[in-house]
Amino acid sequence: MVVETPARKLDRKEVEQLVREVLRQKLRGEMGPPVREQHAAQATGTGGPPHPLVVNVSARHLHITPGDLETLFGPGAKLAKMKDLYQQDEFASEQLVTLVGPRQRIIPNVRILGPVRQYTQVELSYTDGIYLGVDLPLRISGDHKETGGITILGPKGALSLTGGVVRAQRHVHMSSEDMNWYGVADGDFVKLKIDGPCGVVFDGVKVRYHPKVVLEVHIDTDEGNACDLETATHMELIVDKKGTSHA
Amino acid sequence: MVVETPARKLDRKEVEQLVREVLRQKLRGEMGPPVREQHAAQATGTGGPPHPLVVNVSARHLHITPGDLETLFGPGAKLAKMKDLYQQDEFASEQLVTLVGPRQRIIPNVRILGPVRQYTQVELSYTDGIYLGVDLPLRISGDHKETGGITILGPKGALSLTGGVVRAQRHVHMSSEDMNWYGVADGDFVKLKIDGPCGVVFDGVKVRYHPKVVLEVHIDTDEGNACDLETATHMELIVDKKGTSHA
Repeated sequence: MVVETPARKLDRKEVEQLVREVLRQKLRGEMGPPVREQHAAQATGTGGPPHPLVVNVSARHLHITPGDLETLFGPGAKLAKMKDLYQQDEFASEQLVTLVGPRQRIIPNVRILGPVRQYTQVELSYTDGIYLGVDLPLRISGDHKETGGITILGPKGALSLTGGVVRAQRHVHMSSEDMNWYGVADGDFVKLKIDGPCGVVFDGVKVRYHPKVVLEVHIDTDEGNACDLETATHMELIVDKKGTSHA
Repeated sequence: MVVETPARKLDRKEVEQLVREVLRQKLRGEMGPPVREQHAAQATGTGGPPHPLVVNVSARHLHITPGDLETLFGPGAKLAKMKDLYQQDEFASEQLVTLVGPRQRIIPNVRILGPVRQYTQVELSYTDGIYLGVDLPLRISGDHKETGGITILGPKGALSLTGGVVRAQRHVHMSSEDMNWYGVADGDFVKLKIDGPCGVVFDGVKVRYHPKVVLEVHIDTDEGNACDLETATHMELIVDKKGTSHA
């Protein structure tokens, strides 16, 4: 990861234009391309799974190392919790950054999710990627092989990532209890069925085991908007016993 | 439909701001939120369906009446063909307009699809709707019951629609030959299965009969990005013989 000021890549006039753009959008209350954060849960019935099925739409966000956080927010900067997320100890921070793509388009107000990580990673939808002009390899968190970078602007500095910009592969967090109930193992693929006016079955939902998690599916905003999760009438995880459902 | 200048709803300063914004974006080559137009086709095999299965992603666009076209582009304005679409006589025009939502956010460079219609209709994705701040009822083309409006700016004038702003319900165009082969009728629902790294089964794909059409599925950009149509390895229409698949 290379940390540098954007002036090394953009000329002064371009940087000034970008800063004006950010200020203008902030002053006008614009937030750049859309963000939808949703949370939908299906209650468990008698004899059902150990935890209710929760599906969350992850809006664009980033994870960050302590060092990169200081680059963007100044020496000694810490993530300030804005609100807890569904998984224990995970939170949305108050810190926002601006992403600058290779076509000089920007997305302001991208939130950092905490706690700090051992890697800096930007998770975007394909809609965002097309807007910014960046390729988004489909990756599970932390897998940065053959991923591209982006420029990130914070209030106290800028950094140019050379990798870690991805579309998060749809996945489901499971504990041992959940995996036992569904009869799956870490790394398996299951399907997520969403019924409703825009019903969809998502194939290739990767099982991610962690001892401390609670059952939760993560999809991105393209996926959440495609199925209009808000109007879902029923949701379920489907395990294909013949094998994995991933192409 | 009420035609009026935007000054009746926006004050002069706001209009000036919007015009500057449009000019600035155009000068900088920005196109507003992202647009992806895709076309994917699955060849037919021996004994297969009468036509290859073609799936197209409809980027945001509008259809327009001759009168509304003249309001936006001046007296006597006609749609100029830029390129043919897959269905006979349908085309993308050279004419672009700017949409202004209730939050004063804009999407410039929205293309008019021809030929002219008996109604003016704006088709957006939910991602667009959230950005602009407009509700998007799910509708089949021409059904404007309980739909909302939007302000449209053209080079020669503006109009404020009072309805016709929708998310197009996913649908498949079929001739009699196609309907016979699949065993479905106009208005039935079928499923569209997309295999690949982001595989999805779209439920509730509405059959729309017309004697002159060729087999073609239309989905929007949220749906096209959710399944990453570009990387699809296989596509098929699935007919649920037990009944319709629509919730």
